[in-house]
Amino acid sequence: MNLTVIILAGGQSRRFWPLEEKNLFDFFGIPLIIYQLKRYSFFLKQKSIRPSFIVVANESNYGTIKNKLKDFPVKEHSLVMQKLPDQSGAILSALEEADLTGPLLVVNGNDIITEKVLYDLLKKTEGNDIVLSAAKVESYIPGGYLVLGQSKDKVERIWEKPPAEEVPRHIDLFRFVLDYFKDAEGLKTALTRNPDEVVGYEDAINSMLKDNRAGYVLNFDKFASLKYPWHILEAMEIFLNNIKDSVVKTEDIDPSARIVGKVYIEEGVKIGSFAKISGPCYIGRNTVIGDHVLVRDSHIASDCIVGAHSEVARSYLGHKVLLHRNYVGDSVLDRECSLGANTVTANWRFDQEPVKSMVGQTPTDTKRTKLGAIIGRQARIGVGVNIMPGVKIEKKSLVMPGTTVYKDLTNHDRK
Amino acid sequence: MNLTVIILAGGQSRRFWPLEEKNLFDFFGIPLIIYQLKRYSFFLKQKSIRPSFIVVANESNYGTIKNKLKDFPVKEHSLVMQKLPDQSGAILSALEEADLTGPLLVVNGNDIITEKVLYDLLKKTEGNDIVLSAAKVESYIPGGYLVLGQSKDKVERIWEKPPAEEVPRHIDLFRFVLDYFKDAEGLKTALTRNPDEVVGYEDAINSMLKDNRAGYVLNFDKFASLKYPWHILEAMEIFLNNIKDSVVKTEDIDPSARIVGKVYIEEGVKIGSFAKISGPCYIGRNTVIGDHVLVRDSHIASDCIVGAHSEVARSYLGHKVLLHRNYVGDSVLDRECSLGANTVTANWRFDQEPVKSMVGQTPTDTKRTKLGAIIGRQARIGVGVNIMPGVKIEKKSLVMPGTTVYKDLTNHDRK
Amino acid sequence: MNLTVIILAGGQSRRFWPLEEKNLFDFFGIPLIIYQLKRYSFFLKQKSIRPSFIVVANESNYGTIKNKLKDFPVKEHSLVMQKLPDQSGAILSALEEADLTGPLLVVNGNDIITEKVLYDLLKKTEGNDIVLSAAKVESYIPGGYLVLGQSKDKVERIWEKPPAEEVPRHIDLFRFVLDYFKDAEGLKTALTRNPDEVVGYEDAINSMLKDNRAGYVLNFDKFASLKYPWHILEAMEIFLNNIKDSVVKTEDIDPSARIVGKVYIEEGVKIGSFAKISGPCYIGRNTVIGDHVLVRDSHIASDCIVGAHSEVARSYLGHKVLLHRNYVGDSVLDRECSLGANTVTANWRFDQEPVKSMVGQTPTDTKRTKLGAIIGRQARIGVGVNIMPGVKIEKKSLVMPGTTVYKDLTNHDRK
Repeated sequence: MNLTVIILAGGQSRRFWPLEEKNLFDFFGIPLIIYQLKRYSFFLKQKSIRPSFIVVANESNYGTIKNKLKDFPVKEHSLVMQKLPDQSGAILSALEEADLTGPLLVVNGNDIITEKVLYDLLKKTEGNDIVLSAAKVESYIPGGYLVLGQSKDKVERIWEKPPAEEVPRHIDLFRFVLDYFKDAEGLKTALTRNPDEVVGYEDAINSMLKDNRAGYVLNFDKFASLKYPWHILEAMEIFLNNIKDSVVKTEDIDPSARIVGKVYIEEGVKIGSFAKISGPCYIGRNTVIGDHVLVRDSHIASDCIVGAHSEVARSYLGHKVLLHRNYVGDSVLDRECSLGANTVTANWRFDQEPVKSMVGQTPTDTKRTKLGAIIGRQARIGVGVNIMPGVKIEKKSLVMPGTTVYKDLTNHDRK
Repeated sequence: MNLTVIILAGGQSRRFWPLEEKNLFDFFGIPLIIYQLKRYSFFLKQKSIRPSFIVVANESNYGTIKNKLKDFPVKEHSLVMQKLPDQSGAILSALEEADLTGPLLVVNGNDIITEKVLYDLLKKTEGNDIVLSAAKVESYIPGGYLVLGQSKDKVERIWEKPPAEEVPRHIDLFRFVLDYFKDAEGLKTALTRNPDEVVGYEDAINSMLKDNRAGYVLNFDKFASLKYPWHILEAMEIFLNNIKDSVVKTEDIDPSARIVGKVYIEEGVKIGSFAKISGPCYIGRNTVIGDHVLVRDSHIASDCIVGAHSEVARSYLGHKVLLHRNYVGDSVLDRECSLGANTVTANWRFDQEPVKSMVGQTPTDTKRTKLGAIIGRQARIGVGVNIMPGVKIEKKSLVMPGTTVYKDLTNHDRK
Repeated sequence: MNLTVIILAGGQSRRFWPLEEKNLFDFFGIPLIIYQLKRYSFFLKQKSIRPSFIVVANESNYGTIKNKLKDFPVKEHSLVMQKLPDQSGAILSALEEADLTGPLLVVNGNDIITEKVLYDLLKKTEGNDIVLSAAKVESYIPGGYLVLGQSKDKVERIWEKPPAEEVPRHIDLFRFVLDYFKDAEGLKTALTRNPDEVVGYEDAINSMLKDNRAGYVLNFDKFASLKYPWHILEAMEIFLNNIKDSVVKTEDIDPSARIVGKVYIEEGVKIGSFAKISGPCYIGRNTVIGDHVLVRDSHIASDCIVGAHSEVARSYLGHKVLLHRNYVGDSVLDRECSLGANTVTANWRFDQEPVKSMVGQTPTDTKRTKLGAIIGRQARIGVGVNIMPGVKIEKKSLVMPGTTVYKDLTNHDRK
């Protein structure tokens, strides 16, 4: 079976501060958007499906994605720039560019799913013209919900952004964008039926639901959607759990080092004496894991130095991060950050309540009882700094030694 | 031989702040009072003596001790509540309750002795009606002293609380309560000869000394009397040195871990990579000793997590204490305390003088050149905190990250 | 061949603060001046030269050097006190004392050279009456330069302390004192030709150059001249690289410890579990390297305790230094210093520029991008202290716990 996959990569990364452009965040040495292409390609081919991809970029990331696609070639893909606003505009940009017919999958480039929900969706394509996706939620969260018909295995409509007080208890299928359409042309028609503007994506689907059999698939697996910067940790967790067999491409490992669990260790990595790597972990090319270091459940990109006596737990480190005697827990350190000796991230509150973090001016519940720091690229943190849970530090910040950081740091603050 | 042992457990724990009820402080997974019962029972049976115990509790600890005696059954014991004031009142409560005859041993539940002094005392029971106990002291300390008769092997009287300036040099036998009486009835008579109030314990003994042969035993071993909270460390040291053969009840020990010296490691304990346990040490049920951790000469109770890169030296940790990258030296951490990453206890002064610690409003010489912190139960200390030698922290305190704590912290201070 | 070697040890150590008397700084358990005697003796004997040494001391170090020469006997030496001012006065004091004839080598006791430049110089003695020494410099530094004759293999004159703007590009041979004279008497004549005062050393050489063939030798090896206190690290590096074969004189090494590279470990040293010594390293008698410690490229003198979880990198530790959980990088700790738990030396700047350090009132470029702290003897640093790059701390200072030290500390500051 042929299948066209539209990958939406045109969203903004505003709420992602102090991290940047989420589509290009590196995982396993590869920018996320490329990694997603490779994952979907691999998963679909496992089921004997021949996919072709259309990535929809926005004005600001189009050039970089184009270059990255040269660095990391992916078969059967095209890249289009989003010409019309909103999600429906993005999809229409893709549909018009390619003049598509036949089966179509629309996915969000920043949503990370497991193969299981994809395979479950593929099963549901038999006997349905449309298959939508949802996760059961225990309490109301803002977004769209699936409303089922009487038979309970068919979707009647999408209820987009209902006010909390109007949602009855049994409406608990929170929709995410992993949408199958038997016929791409039908979607195009629905999106363009209004001559003045592109029809909203959910409205278009709702109009199609009247004449089409629409099934749905429920996701019970871990699911990450990169909206806030701490979601990097959730994406990382899914990716790390995908390591099925350990791969170790270096021989520069001290005989006293301990490696347990599933790990993916790239070429040129050096692992010191009495170091412990407790999988699942990814360690990128030429990274040095120093003596007496402990790394667990973490993603450490290329050319990092994790200096002696450090501990990195459940954290994401970008390219060329420098650590030394640090505790980095449940934290995201973007590329080229450095932390002075004895600097630590506090990662839980005295009261063990979920950590709050500011998004703009709004204290936001991260829903994580363990969350450390989010540090933008090229920030330099001095020695002996204590960073409180959920604190975010702007890229290129300098943080004075011996300080305790309670609030988000923007470069403006430092002046 | 049958022997009744009265264990006095009715004392107050006022000077014990920020720790609580010293009779119920856990050692080796067992509350002290129970542990003492078991120790005396074991020691006496080794010498073919059949002991029966009477524990004298006070109003506030009676209920708990009763419950603990159900949890940890001890043969041949009874528990009485102290009905009359003072030590003599406590002893009389026991004597009247049981209407005792025959040989009697009176001991203080908070004094920790070695078996050697007990066995030496038993030897002295031959040819004596009374045997008292003392330790030689090099300089005056407040308390009671034994005054010997001309023969030097008999006690003439107890000199209770003499003023320092009146004590001649040769009066150096400091008395502690480990008293043997051949006939319990004689003691009862002496305590009750005054119709209006109970005779003081030392006065009663002094009156008996006129008509009875009284020997004494000298203790040259370590001896701990739980008066101030740092005495927990002295008790611990005696108990740890009692571990004659290593016992390891867990198999969850990383092959790289090192265990040296005498240790008692309970079931469910997990010991990480490159961890070192340097005995004598006790490690309680289900406690986790993390990677790169060093524990030496310490008592760590059950369900603790001693997180990676910590060092615990000559310290007592209660149940469910959480550490992470800490140095805890010569310190007492009561149950459910937590210390943030990089928090350390300073445990000696720049001038290497004995550490002083406040008792009420009085700076008190602890006679220890090494003493860390005493932390009450459920206190939570942030990351990067430096706690100065001899500092005490009240239970349930919260200590802000990155601070240096010079003085005792009461919860009142924090407001 | 016989060779008299004058070793100049009469210089002041003013710019060496907070360290003291550089000639007596210990390396490998031996005061520098003795170590230099032994090195020159060994190097020269390798080339079948029979050296005799004249050490020129000043008033303040004469007595101590005399005593040290008793403790560490060196064959064929004499010690003279400098009677006349300046370098030329020092040399003349030696020449007059011994009434020397024959070949003479004049060296500076605080300059540390490798044997290679010495051997190169010896080769040049054939066909030359004088051989001077220099190193090529890339940019102007204050001092003396060799001006070559037309043949380029002969020295025309020494240009002493030329102003920077007058030095042409091709004048780049920076002179250091490793001077050979075929005839000691010629030098004596040149130094004493002025009846009123001793002729300056460079002037005397310049006058000799008119009638003598003068070659020169170029040093391309590492070279250290103990002018500023951080130069100890450069001297150390040369000495450590001289360890050709590992020597380990202790057996008290935990089986889990790792020793890699070239090391010289003295008697009585104790090395703990999971410790790593990464050579080149020297570890002095009876020093204890604790558990989980990392030592690399460092000199640690006798009777030190490098407590658990410390890291010592590229640093010099004097006799009886106490560490515990420290990071000491690119630092010099004079004897009997102690650092509290978690105290660290920051050793590079955020901007990765060379570290500046104050010399008197002058910020001085140390030309090192990595430089930690210089700590005078018997200073006691509390727990949790952060010491900034290039900071110097006066002997016997007390540094309060939890502080961040940005500027040099003199004892006066502390009042």
